[in-house]
Amino acid sequence: MKYYSFTNEPTIPEDDFFMKEALKEAHLALAADEIPVGAVLVCKGRVIGKGHNLTQKLNDVTAHAEMQAFTAASNFLGGKYLSDCTLYVTLEPCVMCAGAAYWTQISRIVFGAHDPQRGFSRLSQNILHPKTQFIGGIFEEECSELVKSFFQKKRNKS
Amino acid sequence: MKYYSFTNEPTIPEDDFFMKEALKEAHLALAADEIPVGAVLVCKGRVIGKGHNLTQKLNDVTAHAEMQAFTAASNFLGGKYLSDCTLYVTLEPCVMCAGAAYWTQISRIVFGAHDPQRGFSRLSQNILHPKTQFIGGIFEEECSELVKSFFQKKRNKS
Repeated sequence: MKYYSFTNEPTIPEDDFFMKEALKEAHLALAADEIPVGAVLVCKGRVIGKGHNLTQKLNDVTAHAEMQAFTAASNFLGGKYLSDCTLYVTLEPCVMCAGAAYWTQISRIVFGAHDPQRGFSRLSQNILHPKTQFIGGIFEEECSELVKSFFQKKRNKS
Repeated sequence: MKYYSFTNEPTIPEDDFFMKEALKEAHLALAADEIPVGAVLVCKGRVIGKGHNLTQKLNDVTAHAEMQAFTAASNFLGGKYLSDCTLYVTLEPCVMCAGAAYWTQISRIVFGAHDPQRGFSRLSQNILHPKTQFIGGIFEEECSELVKSFFQKKRNKS
């Protein structure tokens, strides 16, 4: 397992726990034949929002796991700012999701697999709010393998 | 009125018509005490989706006018790609909305006022899909004045 932190921030034990919760969400996406990405939103040790990719089922590009987790958490809190929260997501957020994270002023983002093609950091790390710390590579292999094998199976079928 | 096109593409008469429709949506946002931004999504001369900013009412950063227009248009078409469509929006899309537009592969984006602070183009024009043409500055003054006077009134109240 490779850990890589953009902020040189050490990983903390609860990161493993909550990334496993995000992986459960990713498996729900897989079961629905969606690109397997999952997310949970955590505030003070408690999951207050979660989501998994539903872009195919909903015919909606905005239905990424992170976007649903943001909306769910904001509903739970009754406020749109997530300044004491951490987003756990199995794949590096895309530009849309990182742009949404900016508006939430979220404290921390922890992601699993890096996404060199569509991840926000290929474009600019400044997409996130200055208050937001982020770290990538938690369960990198497991998160990455999930997506890779999904596309491999799709290619073999076509 | 200042026209400025990133693609040197000429504006077409229907752009004025549909930007006025987007302005109507922006006025609905204003009436609801939201930052006044409106959007319509047009396919073959027909409005197939629209939205206005509802981030305060819904306590949800993802409730930008454009995001709602994308979701509505995808629902209407029964597909998530908007490759024959044009988005008209009164303010230059932010990074989140431009990132969503990327996934839709939309043909064209026409926006009103430039947003030097939060508009996507300050970061990179490459956020959009290579297939997407965009043009800004249609009814620039009217669209811009709407937002400026909203914030001016807020400041005067506080």
